[in-house]
Amino acid sequence: MSRYTDNGTIIMDRPPSIVAYGSAAGRMEAEGPLGSCFDYVSEDSSFGERTWEKAESRLQQHALEQALIRGGLSEGEISFMFAGDLQSQCTASVYSMRDSGVRFFGVYGACSTMAECMALAAVFADSGAGNLCAALASSHFCTAERQFRTPEDYGGQRTPTAQWTATASGCVIIGEHSAPPYITAVTPGRITDLGINDANNMGAAMAPAAYDTISSHFEATGTSPEDYDLILTGDLGCVGSEILRDLFLHDGISLGDRHNDCGMMIFDRDRQDVHAGGSGCGCSASVLCGHILGRVKGGELGNVLFCATGALMSTTLLQQGESIPGIAHCVQIRSE
Amino acid sequence: MSRYTDNGTIIMDRPPSIVAYGSAAGRMEAEGPLGSCFDYVSEDSSFGERTWEKAESRLQQHALEQALIRGGLSEGEISFMFAGDLQSQCTASVYSMRDSGVRFFGVYGACSTMAECMALAAVFADSGAGNLCAALASSHFCTAERQFRTPEDYGGQRTPTAQWTATASGCVIIGEHSAPPYITAVTPGRITDLGINDANNMGAAMAPAAYDTISSHFEATGTSPEDYDLILTGDLGCVGSEILRDLFLHDGISLGDRHNDCGMMIFDRDRQDVHAGGSGCGCSASVLCGHILGRVKGGELGNVLFCATGALMSTTLLQQGESIPGIAHCVQIRSE
Repeated sequence: MSRYTDNGTIIMDRPPSIVAYGSAAGRMEAEGPLGSCFDYVSEDSSFGERTWEKAESRLQQHALEQALIRGGLSEGEISFMFAGDLQSQCTASVYSMRDSGVRFFGVYGACSTMAECMALAAVFADSGAGNLCAALASSHFCTAERQFRTPEDYGGQRTPTAQWTATASGCVIIGEHSAPPYITAVTPGRITDLGINDANNMGAAMAPAAYDTISSHFEATGTSPEDYDLILTGDLGCVGSEILRDLFLHDGISLGDRHNDCGMMIFDRDRQDVHAGGSGCGCSASVLCGHILGRVKGGELGNVLFCATGALMSTTLLQQGESIPGIAHCVQIRSE
Repeated sequence: MSRYTDNGTIIMDRPPSIVAYGSAAGRMEAEGPLGSCFDYVSEDSSFGERTWEKAESRLQQHALEQALIRGGLSEGEISFMFAGDLQSQCTASVYSMRDSGVRFFGVYGACSTMAECMALAAVFADSGAGNLCAALASSHFCTAERQFRTPEDYGGQRTPTAQWTATASGCVIIGEHSAPPYITAVTPGRITDLGINDANNMGAAMAPAAYDTISSHFEATGTSPEDYDLILTGDLGCVGSEILRDLFLHDGISLGDRHNDCGMMIFDRDRQDVHAGGSGCGCSASVLCGHILGRVKGGELGNVLFCATGALMSTTLLQQGESIPGIAHCVQIRSE
């Protein structure tokens, strides 16, 4: 049974367990600083498929498969799948799960999708609605760029604030309270829009949402940055990360070296031409599942606040002169 | 606390209550057989806005407002909003809720979205994760047609199996067990794809999913069609409804006059040129909230199985030769 606090945080009285996790990534991500962490890597961006969209579905299937292998589980043991991606109509997720027979909830939270799926799966697992609930998210550079910005073949110039959509996926399988790591609390986010309308500056559009949700989480749980070994945002990139730290400094709170951002971690900005950093649902999903959860399970990280951020931008409404709404969801993960 | 059955149905041991509900619709829906049922009707398809996309957001806000009025509630009392629509990036929902300050879960289930949102909201309300949880879904003929098929100005010919996307919205607000109506059980759906690849025959793509989820629900709850006053699918239209009845007849089960379909109810097919019937997330959402829930609350309908169906089609993958995956989610609603 979970407990709801007045400002929107859900505290798990009997925290559900992260039973298994898996990650998959493309070649460029494998060449980045975390390359050796991913469970599955493909040298081929098409993942053996004939279109980018089908490639992303295959990528998701690899992340799910790696989670199943790590947990010694079969797909049939999953009660409910919460999945999403950046493609319109959640295409990658729908087609990746089409033949699985797993009961399916389609989710759209832009790059915040992994945390949104984990929040849903955690509440379901906690409430007894399902034995094992999975959260799955992905992004693919080639499907995202042509949908949200310009066709790749066009060769458009990228601005310094632009982020690079990661070709990556992560999957977390959550069950009722047993062994660590545990999900101890979640804070779903509010839509926050301060008027940014540049699709090449998503970090600035998302940072206020991250600030809002993390502040709420601190308040509801009576915690401060020092209580966490890692406050992991994703994917603010370097522009959004700086804005987030500034927003907290205005409150007299220093995130200091407790904060890191998945978009800053997945690529080497000196060596890889990604401008402000990585982005995409798969960026935070793969960094969490490939790099972080193992360190929580091993006890190296005792208390992690995972805050995936999303720019809920609509290409149609941007063309109509609208700004980009941001959102961020927090999931707190503990090693004991 | 909810109880999970092995075949995927979630039984609510202490069923959450439908605290309030509201509906809004456009002129053509108001001219249909259920026209007098909707709480709010606009003669103007643009709902006072300058674009169809913004019009759909305004439509959603009207449905939410009507639910709040009926429940004597304020927006600030809603803990979590589960919302979705047919627009890419859940645009209508994101922009309708942008200024609300309500914690937001974006959902994509195509035309099954209302049942998906209600299932999520019911589990959250039941688990104690939130005081009041809202489910909100909409569709708008003009945003859907130009996104999924052809621009309206093109004047494309419609096939006999084509359905007409309803311009409508519905909102249900769910809280912990108190007064009826109650949500007693939900069965989330599996993705089902029997190879239909005609975007103008969604009924055929969705009917097998409806059959699968309703069958699972019957089995898990030990019920048969006679136990229900109404088995309400949405939106199979006349083609999909006939397929659904046939699929059950193969099992020796007659749905008989217990079955009706939101897509068949919202328009008068003799008088209104809608071909196989209505469709869109807003069709089932508005029929449920405008026409059905009041009759459950009044005791006229004691036991309703609401099964919203979705064609999870991706325009991009259809162009790549793929078929249309279908899904259906069941929500059981009782008057006592």
